[in-house]
Amino acid sequence: MTRTVLESATKTVVIGFDDPFCVIGERINPTGRKKLAAELEMGDFSTVEKDALEQVLCGATVLDINSGAVFSNKMAEDPRYADNNFVEPPLMKALIECVQAVTDVPLCIDSSVPGALEAGLQAANGRPLLNSVTGEEERLELVLPLVKKYNVPVVAISNDDTGISEDPDVRFAVARKIVERAADFGIPAHDIVVDPLVMPVGAMATAGQQVFALVRRLREELGVNTTCGASNISFGLPNRHGVNAAFLPMAIGAGMTSAIMNPVRAQEMEAIRAANMLMNHDPNGGEWIRLAKVLEGMKEGASFAEASAAASAAASGRRGGRRGRG
Amino acid sequence: MTRTVLESATKTVVIGFDDPFCVIGERINPTGRKKLAAELEMGDFSTVEKDALEQVLCGATVLDINSGAVFSNKMAEDPRYADNNFVEPPLMKALIECVQAVTDVPLCIDSSVPGALEAGLQAANGRPLLNSVTGEEERLELVLPLVKKYNVPVVAISNDDTGISEDPDVRFAVARKIVERAADFGIPAHDIVVDPLVMPVGAMATAGQQVFALVRRLREELGVNTTCGASNISFGLPNRHGVNAAFLPMAIGAGMTSAIMNPVRAQEMEAIRAANMLMNHDPNGGEWIRLAKVLEGMKEGASFAEASAAASAAASGRRGGRRGRG
Repeated sequence: MTRTVLESATKTVVIGFDDPFCVIGERINPTGRKKLAAELEMGDFSTVEKDALEQVLCGATVLDINSGAVFSNKMAEDPRYADNNFVEPPLMKALIECVQAVTDVPLCIDSSVPGALEAGLQAANGRPLLNSVTGEEERLELVLPLVKKYNVPVVAISNDDTGISEDPDVRFAVARKIVERAADFGIPAHDIVVDPLVMPVGAMATAGQQVFALVRRLREELGVNTTCGASNISFGLPNRHGVNAAFLPMAIGAGMTSAIMNPVRAQEMEAIRAANMLMNHDPNGGEWIRLAKVLEGMKEGASFAEASAAASAAASGRRGGRRGRG
Repeated sequence: MTRTVLESATKTVVIGFDDPFCVIGERINPTGRKKLAAELEMGDFSTVEKDALEQVLCGATVLDINSGAVFSNKMAEDPRYADNNFVEPPLMKALIECVQAVTDVPLCIDSSVPGALEAGLQAANGRPLLNSVTGEEERLELVLPLVKKYNVPVVAISNDDTGISEDPDVRFAVARKIVERAADFGIPAHDIVVDPLVMPVGAMATAGQQVFALVRRLREELGVNTTCGASNISFGLPNRHGVNAAFLPMAIGAGMTSAIMNPVRAQEMEAIRAANMLMNHDPNGGEWIRLAKVLEGMKEGASFAEASAAASAAASGRRGGRRGRG
């Protein structure tokens, strides 16, 4: 069974057909988070630290680090800041060093700037996931050598020079091309994590079925792990968390093995934990029972992160207690 | 694509591969509901009326009517009441007449007593679903003639004279035997709705995977619709609704087309409505948007049934208003 191995300095996380669904926390991303971008511009990393800790508490086992910030004030003073090839490499390094100082989970290095990817690969401990390569020729030639040089796994997004196809057969063909091209570089299929691209179901009624069918084919025909930007599915709809919380178990049932998502929402994490148990990826339901206690804690008004922290502290206390008595 | 057609006096409901998931309301069932059994013994049908109306408001499109009551007081006075062949036929007739007086959805006639099944078939309007036949020889010979005589569809439960097998291959073989035996009676496969039997995942870790694999095979190899007692999956676990709410979308993704369940719980119904949309069985997301309004209404403390009633009344008002202006 396919296993993609990620590592931090101290932890190993496997994305795999026979493993619990891998939750990659998406919060550390200044794209579309103006307040975070402004903080980073001023060298303030406190939100990054908080988001790193909260996401891990809530169940992320990998953290995505995206350096796609626009530094508007600096740009006004120094035109070099208009170029993300200038902004992102040092920012990626700083973000990774900050996150590695407060947590010990493997990282996912996320940028469209090759220099930022390489800066991330140099700064990250262990074996991070690189995010991403696409089927675009230029991108293949820039990113695959990095994947080979640093011996890391990579997210492969199913679009190419013609854009994002609405035809799932075309998206499958792009994924196959990336896997084949990677093989030419000596990169094995188990180090490619394909994102089949999730369209909003509110705009394309077949979007859900497309993903489920693609995930099955990617798994059965190419033998690769899969990931996605899960919340895309609910874009534009009311009660988005309810859509996501049904989509994730269905995707897991179809064979999807990871997602880049917000783990700070209880509804989605509850759905994933239940799906893990229903896939027989939660021995004795231990993770489910632990989550049930967290959800119980939320009834008194605590946020998911707060209730997770409280449950985690209580569990350490009990462990300490047993050790004390031992 | 397989379609199982149910009818009331005025409504048609299709259980089908290309149709929204069919929710069969399970509440009208005195088994394990002592208070309801005691009311029925005194001829009080008010809870039955209330449960019928609430379940339909919450989204059941078929109502299961189970006559399995034990009338302890009457039994003490008259030993004939110890025999369910004596108790159930008139009770089934009375339950059906009561429910048909207050709602207009098709019914599912649910009893282990052949006389009650036939009394139900005589009392029910339209084309009810018969619940159930099993692979047990005696049961096949008793129930299939009724199915043929009244030209109704039937739930087929995958156990036989050897009991309930833990081996999904055996359960599949039992389902195939029932479908073949029904064919001998001239009953088509599209009138058989197979229940592959859902085991508690807390007791059998492979229970979820078994159901998903069985549903796929039943659909692809036998071409039959499927149903299940969905809440069995979570028996014995904490936060059961969370387990059910992940199980249902996964089962729907695997191809399950109906369930006998409690529709008065918002979490499960939310999961089903989202899954319908993700399977492209909710044109333009109309049902999802309607549900989102109901859930919004619950934020002020209303129950799911109350919020559903309010949303339904508001929609009728708007429709009336438009007609008034037309």
